[in-house]
Amino acid sequence: MTSDVAMDDQLTLAAWAEKHAGERAPDIAAALNELSAESAAEVLLHLPPERAVEVLDSPELTETTEIVSLLSLERAAPLLSGMSADRVAHVLRAMEPPDRAALAQRLDAESRESMRSLLGYPEQSAGSLMTTEFVSVPSDWTVGQTLEHIRKVERTRETIYAIYVCDPRDNTLLQAVTLRGLVVAEPGAPVLSAARPRRPITVPPLADREEAARLISKYDLLAIPVVDEEGHVLGIVTVDDIIDAILQESAEDVQRFGGVAASGEPYLRTGFVSMVRKRAGWLSVLFVGETLTASTMQFFHGEIEKAIVLTLFIPLIMGSGGNAGSQATSLLIRALALGELRLHDWWRVVLREVPAGLVLGTILATIGIARIVLWQKLGIYDYGPHWMLVALTVASALVGIVTFGSLAGSMLPFVLQRFGFDPASASAPFVATLVDVTGLVIYFGVATSILSGTLL
Amino acid sequence: MTSDVAMDDQLTLAAWAEKHAGERAPDIAAALNELSAESAAEVLLHLPPERAVEVLDSPELTETTEIVSLLSLERAAPLLSGMSADRVAHVLRAMEPPDRAALAQRLDAESRESMRSLLGYPEQSAGSLMTTEFVSVPSDWTVGQTLEHIRKVERTRETIYAIYVCDPRDNTLLQAVTLRGLVVAEPGAPVLSAARPRRPITVPPLADREEAARLISKYDLLAIPVVDEEGHVLGIVTVDDIIDAILQESAEDVQRFGGVAASGEPYLRTGFVSMVRKRAGWLSVLFVGETLTASTMQFFHGEIEKAIVLTLFIPLIMGSGGNAGSQATSLLIRALALGELRLHDWWRVVLREVPAGLVLGTILATIGIARIVLWQKLGIYDYGPHWMLVALTVASALVGIVTFGSLAGSMLPFVLQRFGFDPASASAPFVATLVDVTGLVIYFGVATSILSGTLL
Repeated sequence: MTSDVAMDDQLTLAAWAEKHAGERAPDIAAALNELSAESAAEVLLHLPPERAVEVLDSPELTETTEIVSLLSLERAAPLLSGMSADRVAHVLRAMEPPDRAALAQRLDAESRESMRSLLGYPEQSAGSLMTTEFVSVPSDWTVGQTLEHIRKVERTRETIYAIYVCDPRDNTLLQAVTLRGLVVAEPGAPVLSAARPRRPITVPPLADREEAARLISKYDLLAIPVVDEEGHVLGIVTVDDIIDAILQESAEDVQRFGGVAASGEPYLRTGFVSMVRKRAGWLSVLFVGETLTASTMQFFHGEIEKAIVLTLFIPLIMGSGGNAGSQATSLLIRALALGELRLHDWWRVVLREVPAGLVLGTILATIGIARIVLWQKLGIYDYGPHWMLVALTVASALVGIVTFGSLAGSMLPFVLQRFGFDPASASAPFVATLVDVTGLVIYFGVATSILSGTLL
Repeated sequence: MTSDVAMDDQLTLAAWAEKHAGERAPDIAAALNELSAESAAEVLLHLPPERAVEVLDSPELTETTEIVSLLSLERAAPLLSGMSADRVAHVLRAMEPPDRAALAQRLDAESRESMRSLLGYPEQSAGSLMTTEFVSVPSDWTVGQTLEHIRKVERTRETIYAIYVCDPRDNTLLQAVTLRGLVVAEPGAPVLSAARPRRPITVPPLADREEAARLISKYDLLAIPVVDEEGHVLGIVTVDDIIDAILQESAEDVQRFGGVAASGEPYLRTGFVSMVRKRAGWLSVLFVGETLTASTMQFFHGEIEKAIVLTLFIPLIMGSGGNAGSQATSLLIRALALGELRLHDWWRVVLREVPAGLVLGTILATIGIARIVLWQKLGIYDYGPHWMLVALTVASALVGIVTFGSLAGSMLPFVLQRFGFDPASASAPFVATLVDVTGLVIYFGVATSILSGTLL
């Protein structure tokens, strides 16, 4: 009976393929994401081969490696040979080494060669993002010769908008020319006459992909050449790959701010054990940090026993300090990320955050006093004979803790940047933990000075 | 004497301009960012006019509006006329209405017309990002005619890589052709033969810029046409503008996760009052939410008085719940933002987060028990005769709170998305506040059931 069911499935998937075959590749990819990898692999075989290649080439397809792994080697190899080199490298990188080797052997010689080079670069490096399918011409060619060459090789190149002009003797990069520049130039003029007067912007293969993104964004490039130490072009990183990288980095920034080690893996595809491990590390470190709050409380246990009423406001005060700190940290991560501030601007931030913290603390203190007075007067709760002093203690502590939280939260990204870390690795839980411990000390310090002689 | 100093400054700035004039425009812009707006404006006047235009056109320059405002109208108008329409709109949008009107009047008729249209669209809309300087040709032209036209108008167009083919009768958009397609096509062939077989991807002017970014990224476009309801091309949004928009959005996502209302303004240029106001709103709302912790504590004051030892662990337990919640929220914001999960996947997340929370809680509980046993045995602190039951209470509460935190934190982005909000508007402070209140109830609930008959 199993074979009947399989037959039904086959028919459905063939119909699915026929229904979607006319759509744009990214749309087919998005629709395939809704199917299981097994069904998606089956559908691909029902699509015309050139459509299947386009779909596999689309970064929109999330389970590309799984799908390719499910195809037989005979089916997979020709599809991979048609894909762009950087996407094939992406697929192979995620495979188990034996599968990868078996599949790589089936590729044509040229693809195999470029895979050997691309897979040698670490993940998230410019080298790992690049494609080897770019246009390069010797510097003694004319504009017309170059355009003629472009027309010939266009089908096999990822982009033809940037053309790299190399020294014919040692093949080192001399200039980058844009297709725009070529189209408006005289066909008989030397190709170098269509170039900008400056040396092209390049990136080394081991640079972080964020560096490539920064350069592409700063200089409004459509592609950036990846160049080795001798000046040879190894490949190019195109603007569309960079957009995908930026979108992923940006989602990871939020994740890091939430206190989870960044990883490129999708949520549901991360194994349970590896997901727990990723979270348990930071959570345990923070927990050990938080145990200092228990030590602080123990230190003040005399005060707590004498004035139990003080404990009622501990969560409120600590929470507010952490919240103020998270706000400040996120503001400064943003400002440093966008280049609005530099390391040496830290004192300007101090001069803003301290008054800001004082004002914010005073606002919360006012709400806090109102809350205590209201509850006392309405008879909802009796804070004891010294309730006004208790209110004053809570209010003063709030001003102190919110100010400290704003200051500590704003300085953390600077400290991280100063010591060579990404300022965006500051996380809200870390700030909260930092502020919690200090907040308790501030609270009991304020309480001792205000309540000593009455409650304490 | 003042005039002598000014003269000295003039000389220095002229020298500065001469020294940097040969650099790339984004590099000059980055260097100008280090000067005051007054000096930067002065330097611009010392640069050759076409360089000054390029520098003002670079998104790298942060204080463009201030600098333009400092120039006399006679100096500013010709520079603006040379800039790309979307950058001019960006500059004018940030000006006071009278200054804007005075400057707009000095622009040439064409620029004035396109400003009138661009400034009509709300900030962060596709319409506000677009440039009106694109290439469009009637559909009855040949490839050769189109290339000839491109060569003629190239200088005044932001991009020539995407060409829009319109119906010659009603000027509605029929197809998009790429320069790549034109270069490889036969010059005598109709321009439409170089187009893809499908209708072009377009975006309406009022769509959010994030939508334009999503489409450009999904379909690997170099530009997307902004089209009105009748099908007329109003302008185009280019990939470089989109990259800048994505970088800004991504920094704002971190800021929102930190609990600050997003705003495009740089940190140091935001007025003190407006910065405080932006933070005070959320901070006060969260504070009022946090006062529920005081009410909860009041509710359990009988338990607290009987077992003061319980209060020692309140900050520790609450902090851990908040941290676990922040982690889960940030993971899910990322997964929803990258499209790895959809709304209907919420139950799959529940099935992962509950066991993950149980495991993470158990890990923290183990550390917690070890901490209490160690302190008790080493004589650092005496948790009383029932210290083993206290340790059990803390451990059980940790498991409960971390599980609840993971569950609540992971569901929050889904709830926000369900009700039409951006899942990224979930903030760490909000999660912490949510978990704090519930955490206290869990803690005292567990304490009552474990310690009743002994301490309680």
